[in-house]
Amino acid sequence: MAQLSKKKCEACHVGASRVSEEEISQLMPLLPEWKIIESNGIKKLKKSYNFKDFKEALEFTNKVGAVSEEENHHPSILTEWGSVTVTWWTHKIKALHINDFIMAAKTEMLV
Amino acid sequence: MAQLSKKKCEACHVGASRVSEEEISQLMPLLPEWKIIESNGIKKLKKSYNFKDFKEALEFTNKVGAVSEEENHHPSILTEWGSVTVTWWTHKIKALHINDFIMAAKTEMLV
Repeated sequence: MAQLSKKKCEACHVGASRVSEEEISQLMPLLPEWKIIESNGIKKLKKSYNFKDFKEALEFTNKVGAVSEEENHHPSILTEWGSVTVTWWTHKIKALHINDFIMAAKTEMLV
Repeated sequence: MAQLSKKKCEACHVGASRVSEEEISQLMPLLPEWKIIESNGIKKLKKSYNFKDFKEALEFTNKVGAVSEEENHHPSILTEWGSVTVTWWTHKIKALHINDFIMAAKTEMLV
């Protein structure tokens, strides 16, 4: 995961290649507790993190926001009292791109 | 709405009274574009706000976070590129409390 987290997001465009099922099965063991979910027919990478209160949750949200601005790839972040749920997918291809796995690994490094 | 937004949250406890249907119908006109949704059997107050990018969305999330810390009543906040969705309800009573309407009005004042 540490190696994956050091990669930079590739420039992404409509028609960029989505990760294959084989790639997904190689990548998922690098991302403990991340799950593949499907929402509106789009595969997404999702994980919830627990914190002691709202303030700590919001601090984590801001860290995720900062790294997503650096890489110009943005997740949805659900901030609640004591938890943050981060969901990555690639809007332009409506699917999972290698960038999403890179960003999930970068998210892990923020905890 | 301005008047509602100036109210302070009451101390809330398990068994505190939920707002009645009649109160809801009086309060909703004060909160334009807010909707009552039901999720897991719990009525909640929800609104999405649009922004020009992720940075502005996250700034709004932080403003909502600050006011929720001041009042010690916290929403769920979904931050995405260009939008923030704020959902208020009262965990202790698993329903809507007057505090949620006060907080929705305070949220409106942050835009």
